Amino acid sequence: MSPLPHLAMADGAEFDAIRRMLTTWSAQAEGIGDDAAILDIPHGERLVVSTDASVEGVHFKREWFSAEEIGARAASAALSDLAAMAATPRGLLLALGLPSGWRSELEAVARGVGAAAAAVQCPILGGNMTASEVLTLTITVLGSAAHPLRRSGALPGDLLYVTGLLGGPGAALRDLLRGATPSAEHRARFAQPSPRVREALWLAELGAHAAIDISDGLLSDAAHLARASAVSIQIDAESLPRMSGVEIDNAVISGEEYELLVAMPPDVVLDERAFEARFGVRLSRMGRVVPREHADVTMIGADVPRSTGHDHLR
Amino acid sequence: MSPLPHLAMADGAEFDAIRRMLTTWSAQAEGIGDDAAILDIPHGERLVVSTDASVEGVHFKREWFSAEEIGARAASAALSDLAAMAATPRGLLLALGLPSGWRSELEAVARGVGAAAAAVQCPILGGNMTASEVLTLTITVLGSAAHPLRRSGALPGDLLYVTGLLGGPGAALRDLLRGATPSAEHRARFAQPSPRVREALWLAELGAHAAIDISDGLLSDAAHLARASAVSIQIDAESLPRMSGVEIDNAVISGEEYELLVAMPPDVVLDERAFEARFGVRLSRMGRVVPREHADVTMIGADVPRSTGHDHLR
Repeated sequence: MSPLPHLAMADGAEFDAIRRMLTTWSAQAEGIGDDAAILDIPHGERLVVSTDASVEGVHFKREWFSAEEIGARAASAALSDLAAMAATPRGLLLALGLPSGWRSELEAVARGVGAAAAAVQCPILGGNMTASEVLTLTITVLGSAAHPLRRSGALPGDLLYVTGLLGGPGAALRDLLRGATPSAEHRARFAQPSPRVREALWLAELGAHAAIDISDGLLSDAAHLARASAVSIQIDAESLPRMSGVEIDNAVISGEEYELLVAMPPDVVLDERAFEARFGVRLSRMGRVVPREHADVTMIGADVPRSTGHDHLR
Repeated sequence: MSPLPHLAMADGAEFDAIRRMLTTWSAQAEGIGDDAAILDIPHGERLVVSTDASVEGVHFKREWFSAEEIGARAASAALSDLAAMAATPRGLLLALGLPSGWRSELEAVARGVGAAAAAVQCPILGGNMTASEVLTLTITVLGSAAHPLRRSGALPGDLLYVTGLLGGPGAALRDLLRGATPSAEHRARFAQPSPRVREALWLAELGAHAAIDISDGLLSDAAHLARASAVSIQIDAESLPRMSGVEIDNAVISGEEYELLVAMPPDVVLDERAFEARFGVRLSRMGRVVPREHADVTMIGADVPRSTGHDHLR
């Protein structure tokens, strides 16, 4: 691992690139240096770990984002998996595939990764660098929790909540794919997602039964949660929090939201205004968990769109 | 993370691919399913974590190895970083970039990863899958140790040992790059490396001061160890264990060996025959640690080759 032995560049370029990343990260990455990184998990907590790749041409096009946004977005997507488990971030590793045409942007990419990690107090533990045809960020995140939140804990009778306003990333992506300019509001949600780490810890503390982050779109991820918990989910279409200019059909299939879908026991009193005041993010009750039916997910007040998939580039 | 949300394939192909990998791994990967994996680190032990990428066209050419060897080799390279820290493997995550031309080989790649993990009793915790132009395996390994072995602990007076016989991967690579067929013995060392996990635990138990795995070549990695420990290293050229047909100059720059270089305190009596009988791997005393001099590494009985770098494809 670090210091990045497999970098297929000339020696000078390799060590120069590593130095530039470490300089950018500074004290955030001070533990880097051995074959592997060492981390202490608090006694009584379990380790939570996830890995996530962001590939130019597959997950994004270069012209859509700044280099810093690309770094931050990849890190936020990975960190969102820790949020879904209500885990406190403990460390991040970056395996970077760096094309020669991206070398001048290395600090900006590193800065973005560093900013997203810093936003949730996550140290950078190490990484790997290799030559690549396209920019590739494979990010592994480590967290810990005494009782990690699972997908499988939802019970009939639970109330469903979602953070934030849905549809921004999907709307921005649709605009970009047809050559239009997304609204600033939609673009910001697409380009600068925030992993809902603090929000998840707060909801877990209140007794949440299950959670998942919305990376594939609300309907797809609600179906994942329903299947894992052996329940069905009813979504109340009118209660869905949407960004301006987004129809319900599009809000429920918008991917890369990195908002949380959470199942709470019905006896928990959630003050949605207090939540918003505390975190600056909306919390909306928008459905319920029911005993297992034929469909994973049904919608009340709207039809389930026929396409529930996530838009991909190819 | 798992179940692999970012796979840029049609839904059917995505879930089919995941199912095929999980079926291949079977009970080895039974914990997969949440946004992140959960792992318990034994009380009193520290987490050790490393990430390592293996990219077609950068680290290997497709025609050099079987698909199973490519999977096993990538996992072994990552696991070797745990060996260098004398950590017990606890889990592995695979982020796979899968080109369409490799889909029929998916089980074979997964089988190779699974075999390398099973050889050191390492469960598979999860992963990520994405479309890719070239086959890319980014593997994160997690281990634990009460006292991880560092690069930085070598002291003047320590004796240096290396596992195995050096030079096989370098010789095989040279042959392959010039269109020749490597000897079976050299090829086996290149295509089927073994992470020295059990050997490292045994040496750590005996009181090893420092270790590094030889991924960049003995001279480069000895220099890393010397700098991290603020010492210099003398290598006794005549004592270097080499594969047949390998000159000293080539043995010391052969990369991707995944053997261990270990600094032992001089009062530890190491029975090299007992080691070989136990592990089926040679252990050779081949140098010593001296107070810091101008050069990181000197050789006794041979000149230090001018090129100390690792052969890369480009």
